[in-house]
Formats: sequence, C-alpha cells, structure tokens
Amino acid sequence: MNKRIVIIGAGNVAYSLAKAILNTNNFSLCQIYSRTIESARSIGVRTGVAYTDNILEVYPDSDIYIYAVSDTALQNIIPSIHIREDALLLHTSGGISLDIFSKMPNSHGVIYPLQTFTKGRELDFKEIPLLLEWSDKKSCDILKKLAAELSDVNIEVDSYRRKLVHLSAVFVCNFTNHLYDLSSRFLEDNDMDFDILRPLIRETADKIMSMKPEYAQTGPAKRGDDIVISAHKKLMKKRENMMEIYDVMTESIFKLYKKEDINIEVEEENTYSISNPTLW
Amino acid sequence: MNKRIVIIGAGNVAYSLAKAILNTNNFSLCQIYSRTIESARSIGVRTGVAYTDNILEVYPDSDIYIYAVSDTALQNIIPSIHIREDALLLHTSGGISLDIFSKMPNSHGVIYPLQTFTKGRELDFKEIPLLLEWSDKKSCDILKKLAAELSDVNIEVDSYRRKLVHLSAVFVCNFTNHLYDLSSRFLEDNDMDFDILRPLIRETADKIMSMKPEYAQTGPAKRGDDIVISAHKKLMKKRENMMEIYDVMTESIFKLYKKEDINIEVEEENTYSISNPTLW
Repeated sequence: MNKRIVIIGAGNVAYSLAKAILNTNNFSLCQIYSRTIESARSIGVRTGVAYTDNILEVYPDSDIYIYAVSDTALQNIIPSIHIREDALLLHTSGGISLDIFSKMPNSHGVIYPLQTFTKGRELDFKEIPLLLEWSDKKSCDILKKLAAELSDVNIEVDSYRRKLVHLSAVFVCNFTNHLYDLSSRFLEDNDMDFDILRPLIRETADKIMSMKPEYAQTGPAKRGDDIVISAHKKLMKKRENMMEIYDVMTESIFKLYKKEDINIEVEEENTYSISNPTLW
Repeated sequence: MNKRIVIIGAGNVAYSLAKAILNTNNFSLCQIYSRTIESARSIGVRTGVAYTDNILEVYPDSDIYIYAVSDTALQNIIPSIHIREDALLLHTSGGISLDIFSKMPNSHGVIYPLQTFTKGRELDFKEIPLLLEWSDKKSCDILKKLAAELSDVNIEVDSYRRKLVHLSAVFVCNFTNHLYDLSSRFLEDNDMDFDILRPLIRETADKIMSMKPEYAQTGPAKRGDDIVISAHKKLMKKRENMMEIYDVMTESIFKLYKKEDINIEVEEENTYSISNPTLW
C-alpha cells in the first residue's frame, strides 16, 4: 500500500513529522499547508514537498490529513478544508479530545508525539513516544501502521488519559525549564555563568532515566533542614517569585517525605555516610 | 611533591572524591574516617584505603584533611579531630562559609563539587565544576594544584556567591526532581507508566546544554493560554499540592514573559508555524 499524506501546519511538530514520514516505506508526504506562505515555504523547501498557503489549493484527494496546528487553530481549521469523505483525519495535540472531529463524516484519530520540538534541533523520531487514539477499525488499522513506521514507542491512550500525560509534560518540561530559567537569571544578576549548573542539570535528568524520581530526591526540603532553608530564604529577599516557588516546592517535598521513607531519614541522621554533604 | 590526604566522611561525595584522588599524580589518599564502621569499611574496601570509625585513630600527620560530611555534622567534627597545625583543612559544602574553620590555626579552604552524587552512579569527576575558596597563599597553592588534578572545571568563588550557586542548585536539582516525582506518582495513580515521559525529560535538559533557558521556554503559561490552563486545573481537582505548584509556576512564567519577548508572542498568535501544537 502507499498512503498519501497532507500536513496542515508548518511548525516544529509539523516539520519533525514531515521528515519522519519521508523515511517511511508505505506512506508518502504530498503537500504541506500553512496559513502563511513563509512557514509553508520554509518547511516545503527543507523537505522537498509541495506547499501552499491557499486553503482552496489543499489537495482534496489525499488519503490522510494530519492537523499539526495549535489547539486554538485546530477547531476552526478542521471544517474549513474540503476533503473527500473517505480520507483519514488525524490531529497531533495532547490536550484536545478525539471528538473534535465528531462533526466530520471521516474516520479520525490522534497521533500525539510526546516530546518538545525546537527549531534547529534534530531528534530521532523513532525514540519519541506516540500516543494513539482512533474512532473505528479503519482509522485503527491505518494509524497503527503509520505509527509503527514512525516510532518504536506506540501507546494506545484515550483522550482523558492523554490529557493527564499532557499535564504531566507541562510539569516536567515547561516548569522544569522555568526552574532552569530562574536560576540562569539569578546567577547572571550576580555575575556568574549558568554554565556551571549544566553538568548538574544533565545528571539530575540522567539519573531518573534508570531510577524512580522518589529515590532520587535529596536536599534540605526532604530532610526538613530548617537551618539551610532559612539561610536560603535570606538570599532571595529581593526575589519574590523565586521565594514563592521555593516555599511551595519546599513545603510540597517536606510533606511528601514526612509521611514516607522514615528509614532513610533515620539513617541520614545517624551517619555521615548516607546524607549528602552538598545538600542535594 | 606528594601530599597525603585524609577524608573525613564516607558518603557519596566522599566516595567520589576518594576515587578521583586515587587518579591524581601528586596526591595520595591515606585514610578514610566515618562515624560508623559500616560506612568507613564500605568506602575503604571499595577504594583499597585504610579506614576507621575511631576519631582517636585518625592519622594526625597527614598534609590535607577533607571534611566531606553533612552541614550539621561539620561544625562539631572540625575541632574534635586532633591534627598538626601545618595541615590544610578543606570542606566540600556549598552552603557553609569558609570561616567555619576560623577558630583553627590551620590554613583552610573549600572545594565544593557542584554535582548530585548518587550511590551506584559513576560520574567522570573531570567534568564536575569545583568551586574553590581559600584562606591564604599556602592553601591557595595547594588547593589549586589538587583541584586541577581532580577536574577540568575550577572556579574561584567566595562564600556568598557559593551560597547563591548552592541555592540555584536546589532549584535545578531538588525542585526539578520533585516535578519528576509528582508527575511519576500522578501517572502511576492513573495506571500509566512514567517511562513515557523520559524522552521528554532528557530532551528538556539536553536542549539547554546549548541554549539559554529563556529561549527554550514554551507552554500555555508563557502564551497566557487560559483555555488550556483551566482545562489543566480541572484535572488536578484532587491534587492540592500539584495545583499549588501549577498556580505558582504558571503565574511566575506568565509574569516573566508578559514583560518581554513581545515579538515572539505576536508571531505565535499570527501563524500556525511558530506555536507548538503540543503546547510546550
């Protein structure tokens, strides 16, 4: 079989997906549509695929349409493109239900790549978890074949659980980056370079590749070390937003570990060897 | 020259440091002391170095003593070990001032390895930033030589700025791990596996190895996307601690980016191509 695909959207997800589709055997990418000609051209030129910014020029006879646009754009763009009724419609959003397609007569599904896509960074699409959902047997069959060619990690997840994953992703990606960002600005304002934190940031992430995060937790909040905590607070006097985050995170960690890991805490108190002198 | 070193403490920092010292040319590790014989033996056996849990048996004639113990233990242990007056005293803590040694007649200094050390994970000590501070020319000379043999990244930092770095480390390591931890528990409680977040976590950290965190920031909070934010809040109704962290982080990100990056925001609003359909 050879299924033709049109991608609607020309952002970072669209581009990564386009490149990955070009590497499949049974699917071909035939067109990219974007609302602006610059974005359409940018991704069209980089992938060697036809592109357009004219919604009337979107090929009406493709087999699959993948909507890789922002959540706000998705609702409006679905009914505005005229396509044949037996085409499969897919979107790539973590936060939007499958039934956004329910007014369309087409089979439909979701293919949500769980990753942060950044211009200029080439990722191995095979390693990106794809969260899949479908409306019927037809969309199930095609979507599973497509996903299997795109990635080694395919997971069937309903709309509700996909939203839970999406929320978790905000915590581990957006919020984590904000912690990096605050620290970077804090060091910069004190004439120090963010570079010195990079090995620590990498190891903090690397560590939980093979470890449950609860076993990797360390630091004054976990130990309930009031002396260190109040010393830290003095350093943030003029940093209201850091202070607020510090308080909420510290309290959350403290509460969590007060209830559990009693053995580890006791061991830390009794020996020099278990507690970590660097405080985290 | 060959300088003999005794390490006081047998935790993860002590062990990593011990292994690194064994790889130097001009320094030799002659003894490890820990308050408990189990910890002392554990590190002594793994490094092939003499060990003791008897404070009276600590060699009194070593050239350098490195105190790699917890912050709370540090104050008490310094005066309790009898050593010659011309020995150099060093501690490894991020949060403790150099002048904790001020009542001792000895030259002294700080060698703070900016990393998270975990049992069972072998790190390349050469890549760990060492933050150095010293009391006089003698300690400066010896400390610089030692640090240069231990690591490729040596930075002179006074006690105040070292504490700022230490606070930043709590943000990017302890707090980041707590975000991982909350997400892991959240997914687990909904019968999903934390594994699916691991590629995203790794990429979030990898991205800022070559990028300023402020340019890597994405997500609904940055865009001020109220629809997505209120959808997220519904999912956390029974998760008070997640909700609190979500609110504080979201507000902090929103405030920060409202003031800046006006151009990027406008661009995101006008095209599908810049905004990221996956929402971060």
